[in-house]
Amino acid sequence: MENTFQIPNSVNPDIAIERKNASFDPEEMAIWYYGSKENLSMKRIIVKESCEDLGDPLLYEFLSYEDMASLGIKCAIDSTKKIRALQERFNPGGTEIYPARLGDNAINVLTPGGNPFTVHILMFTRALREQGTPEQYEKFGRRADNCEIIGTFAQTELGHGTYLKGLEARADYDRRTEEFVLNTPKLTSYKWWPGGLGQTCNYCIVVAQLYIDNEPKGIQMFVVQIRDEETHMPLPGVHVGEIGKKVGYNGVNHGFLGLKDYRVPRLNMLMRNQQVLADGTYVKSPVSQLSYYPMMFVRCMVARMCAEMLAQVATITTRFSVIRRQSPIDEGDAEPKILEHMTQQMKVIPEIATSIAYSLAAKNLRSLYDETSEAIMRQDFSRLPELHALACILKVSCSYDATYGIERLRQGCGGHGFLTAGNVGTIFSMASAACTYEGENSVLYLQVGKILMKAWADAMAGKQLMPTLMYIKECSSGAESFKWKGTWQCLVKAIQYACVGYIRVAFASFNSRLKQGLSQSVAVSKTGLELTKAAELHGRAYVAANFYQEVMHGRNKEQRSPQFQRVLENLLELYLLQIFFRHLGDILRFVHISEDDIASLQTRLEEVLKKLRPDAVAITDGFDFEDKVLSSALGCYDGNVYERLFQAALKHPLNKKPVADFYELHLKPFMRENAAKARANAKL
Amino acid sequence: MENTFQIPNSVNPDIAIERKNASFDPEEMAIWYYGSKENLSMKRIIVKESCEDLGDPLLYEFLSYEDMASLGIKCAIDSTKKIRALQERFNPGGTEIYPARLGDNAINVLTPGGNPFTVHILMFTRALREQGTPEQYEKFGRRADNCEIIGTFAQTELGHGTYLKGLEARADYDRRTEEFVLNTPKLTSYKWWPGGLGQTCNYCIVVAQLYIDNEPKGIQMFVVQIRDEETHMPLPGVHVGEIGKKVGYNGVNHGFLGLKDYRVPRLNMLMRNQQVLADGTYVKSPVSQLSYYPMMFVRCMVARMCAEMLAQVATITTRFSVIRRQSPIDEGDAEPKILEHMTQQMKVIPEIATSIAYSLAAKNLRSLYDETSEAIMRQDFSRLPELHALACILKVSCSYDATYGIERLRQGCGGHGFLTAGNVGTIFSMASAACTYEGENSVLYLQVGKILMKAWADAMAGKQLMPTLMYIKECSSGAESFKWKGTWQCLVKAIQYACVGYIRVAFASFNSRLKQGLSQSVAVSKTGLELTKAAELHGRAYVAANFYQEVMHGRNKEQRSPQFQRVLENLLELYLLQIFFRHLGDILRFVHISEDDIASLQTRLEEVLKKLRPDAVAITDGFDFEDKVLSSALGCYDGNVYERLFQAALKHPLNKKPVADFYELHLKPFMRENAAKARANAKL
Repeated sequence: MENTFQIPNSVNPDIAIERKNASFDPEEMAIWYYGSKENLSMKRIIVKESCEDLGDPLLYEFLSYEDMASLGIKCAIDSTKKIRALQERFNPGGTEIYPARLGDNAINVLTPGGNPFTVHILMFTRALREQGTPEQYEKFGRRADNCEIIGTFAQTELGHGTYLKGLEARADYDRRTEEFVLNTPKLTSYKWWPGGLGQTCNYCIVVAQLYIDNEPKGIQMFVVQIRDEETHMPLPGVHVGEIGKKVGYNGVNHGFLGLKDYRVPRLNMLMRNQQVLADGTYVKSPVSQLSYYPMMFVRCMVARMCAEMLAQVATITTRFSVIRRQSPIDEGDAEPKILEHMTQQMKVIPEIATSIAYSLAAKNLRSLYDETSEAIMRQDFSRLPELHALACILKVSCSYDATYGIERLRQGCGGHGFLTAGNVGTIFSMASAACTYEGENSVLYLQVGKILMKAWADAMAGKQLMPTLMYIKECSSGAESFKWKGTWQCLVKAIQYACVGYIRVAFASFNSRLKQGLSQSVAVSKTGLELTKAAELHGRAYVAANFYQEVMHGRNKEQRSPQFQRVLENLLELYLLQIFFRHLGDILRFVHISEDDIASLQTRLEEVLKKLRPDAVAITDGFDFEDKVLSSALGCYDGNVYERLFQAALKHPLNKKPVADFYELHLKPFMRENAAKARANAKL
Repeated sequence: MENTFQIPNSVNPDIAIERKNASFDPEEMAIWYYGSKENLSMKRIIVKESCEDLGDPLLYEFLSYEDMASLGIKCAIDSTKKIRALQERFNPGGTEIYPARLGDNAINVLTPGGNPFTVHILMFTRALREQGTPEQYEKFGRRADNCEIIGTFAQTELGHGTYLKGLEARADYDRRTEEFVLNTPKLTSYKWWPGGLGQTCNYCIVVAQLYIDNEPKGIQMFVVQIRDEETHMPLPGVHVGEIGKKVGYNGVNHGFLGLKDYRVPRLNMLMRNQQVLADGTYVKSPVSQLSYYPMMFVRCMVARMCAEMLAQVATITTRFSVIRRQSPIDEGDAEPKILEHMTQQMKVIPEIATSIAYSLAAKNLRSLYDETSEAIMRQDFSRLPELHALACILKVSCSYDATYGIERLRQGCGGHGFLTAGNVGTIFSMASAACTYEGENSVLYLQVGKILMKAWADAMAGKQLMPTLMYIKECSSGAESFKWKGTWQCLVKAIQYACVGYIRVAFASFNSRLKQGLSQSVAVSKTGLELTKAAELHGRAYVAANFYQEVMHGRNKEQRSPQFQRVLENLLELYLLQIFFRHLGDILRFVHISEDDIASLQTRLEEVLKKLRPDAVAITDGFDFEDKVLSSALGCYDGNVYERLFQAALKHPLNKKPVADFYELHLKPFMRENAAKARANAKL
């Protein structure tokens, strides 16, 4: 008996009816989500053309580890070529497709297991361009841009991460030969984690402590060739390899690197901002703030990525939730779509709203980044601190909320969410990794906490605050000035008051520690829990206020149809209520809201879920994620979930034979032996 | 240059000093944690002997999928033999080691990727024994117990899970031949998920809708042979296979099963409680409540398992946190152990306390299960509803909190938590799966919510409540009767008041829906969010009250040293404060606590973290998890974290050769081609 249950060519009526009943046109939302008709159509072209001859990502999962690595490289090369070709076709010489789009989630599917070229493209080439002199760019950067050499960015060490000053790799200047001598003196100083380092790269930028005459000069970047360009053999003095299996990203060739008395010419230190002259004179950078600037770009990117990953999984779970049926609501009824259950609505729809809130926040952050970059060109560094604060807090909020939201959504798919064919586990591992890389989230919380302490002191001293911190001043007069009105502005205000409440409490603790004679740093450390709380709420306050602003006063508001505007307002309502209840304790601690008012918000929450329920599928359609991009049997556009799961199962290597080899080898002898023993015992 | 960095035979001084400075003896805690000296020593013997010749679990990770499956079966057989031999040695004929211990987390490591025999041992044999007649046990059960045949429990279907009444597989009684004809009429009726079904089992129990003369008689269990005992070939009418790759448990051979007009004799229906007579007469079970009883056992087990998994990962992260150093607290200081940072303490130590709180609750639940089982033997079913309520809520609370706690702890290990060598990812996937299997958590919340509604109605009617629900009556008079005192009892009370507050609110919503004319079921569904909240808090209230009871009035309290008692009290303080702050909003919504009192609890939280900090390593030592059981480079007893990570990395298959095969195949041609293009462009 062998059924095959082929995937139908038709759309499952259970999802078709959802689209028919939607109150708005998802195409309008897609244009809005991608910023313009042109952006949307370019996105569609890129995905269509790059995914055209895509292999089956599920088959990759069953390969041996070495075959995975090999296919991983092949995919990385293919995708690089494809995206480069698109750039050449649409705008030769530009960068808005290649390399810009290579960081897109939509492109992830081209490189199952992750892209071993990502760090090359996003950080190695960028550092050569931005931190190197024009001559250095000519020597290394151009070849890197052309992918004649492949590099990575070797900063993190086995024993050192976010605290860069603690790095142990060192570069000693040898005046005699005009060279730097690089060493990773201990096991803990081995570079560890750089993507592509394991077996892909032949070059890298090593971040190391510069010493001149044994005097430390701070961390610097050095271009280091690690493998022979012809044979790819590691060069003498280089110990390089893979760091082992991981929870995810197993195609990235994350590597380790040890260096022993490895010499590079003086001009291999990237010298755009600071220099070591031939005689060993160290010339400091005039703009020290800029050394962290490249990281800010990556943090902006991470925030956007995480928002989109959450949207992807929300799409998968929403679509699954209108196909899956379970548990009659009334006795004797048929089993309804699980999205009819209010508990499932509460699991799914708020995550849709959250992903949109973060997507808007990340877009705004990116605008601030672009403005700041332009300002820096004019030697105006005034907006750097604000960009820093916002990039930190959004990176943290987006990655945390995406991680835990995706896990909840995965559970919202029941057991099937656990299947690789649903593709949620992979997206989860990517979001979860983002909580750690590019500035560990807890550490970034503390940095934001410190900025808030300074802002509070400034506010108290009557000084001007950065635009995104202005609310601190407005709410500083305390709970008496807060009047509950139940409007969206008021919900935003409630969160802002809670945040400012924590800032005030943290500032008091911090100050009393200073008065006890503790140093600034120790006082910050001891106030860590309250600073973290304040920072978390600052993130919420920003995202909520920005969502409100975009929905109610966004530049493109007048172009929206009333239908779509209504959907956006419902999403705003849901997002604000969700955040309100999530932080109820933080809010009630600092402002008064009556039990009746809280109860009426609960009713509003239930009502807005009900309003959004019929539009849930259409909203996720509005994200315009192609089936190939979602790569999920659970989240396919046509809703043929069960057929796809079944087809995916049939690809399992053990299903190729009716009896697995292990039967004769292990299982049969075991059962026979047990039977023989039982017979022997019976005879006794 | 090839360093090897062997693992030292000595203990890392950074962890040795922690043990030296601890305030109590971890051996005392271990005896307490395992219940007695005898239990502890038996656990040690079992782990020592069964792990003796254990292979390297990391190598398993790199095998091809088919080799993994084969090794998985071999490991399952070996571990079964080992544990059975231990049972024979210590108590022949008993069951307290085999099969009881096969569900222990400590044994997980014997079967990397999960155990394909688990369902055979825990559910198949159990159902034959408990749901079959003595004759049926003789025919099937004894052979299953001897592992002459291997079976599984085929209940869940591709389209149906927790709602059993919705199952589509059907068994029609054929009076003429005295047989049942089994069918899975649609794709969605395929059995899907049973462990071992894919390629391991030759038998299974199929749960199907019984029909006699096309009249439905409810779900029944049928013993079905699916593969030939000699050749292991699927029998005619049987479509069986693997369901595909998963987020975890990839060694379990989860399978699917389709049946087409498959006939089994009448006496293959398990008939202990209900029967189909030869003439087709259906004889109902006299005790319908008992049909869910086997599930309760598994839920008790899941609660304990999850508590222990959280303890395992808390151990790993705690040990890592005293080896890893980062970010000076005061400027100019050396980098401290990360556990000196208060934010890290807050990430790690509350999870230790939570795991202990849950472990105590799960033990209590198990006692209730055993008492109830004895009572049932005496035909006393009175405690079943309480057991049901408690098993549901603890299964949910333990699995949720373990899942999200483990993920936070994984992030607490920074990037290294992402390495498979740390073993946290695997434990996470197991905890996360437990949120779904054996009763999906959201569905169980609603069941508990319904029980709470009934309890509230009973309390209002002056009726007696079950012991674990008595507090509902005590707190029902509302906030006025609550006086804040700051004691532990008062903290427990605060949580109970919050729970009862939500019960009252939910009951009012539920009732007003009934008055609107909605049916009971619809009213429950529409009150889903509030019922979920009430259920969640009921779980908290139970665990908190039980933790308090065990620490302050536990039976063995007088045997404890004052030092260990102090540690337990600190853990209790931390647990209660943590729960308080986590549910601050829920508490403040229903009782009044002043801002000053809240601020003083924040101070207490910071103080108790400080008190527990020096004992953190010793407490996790007190869990007595052997290195082989933790199987984690990050959490090894000797603290040689970095050397172990390095050695683990060297096992990566790509590290076997200096240059990966993909270089010549893919990478070199790509770089050469790019260089050629660049030269060509330069000439233009």
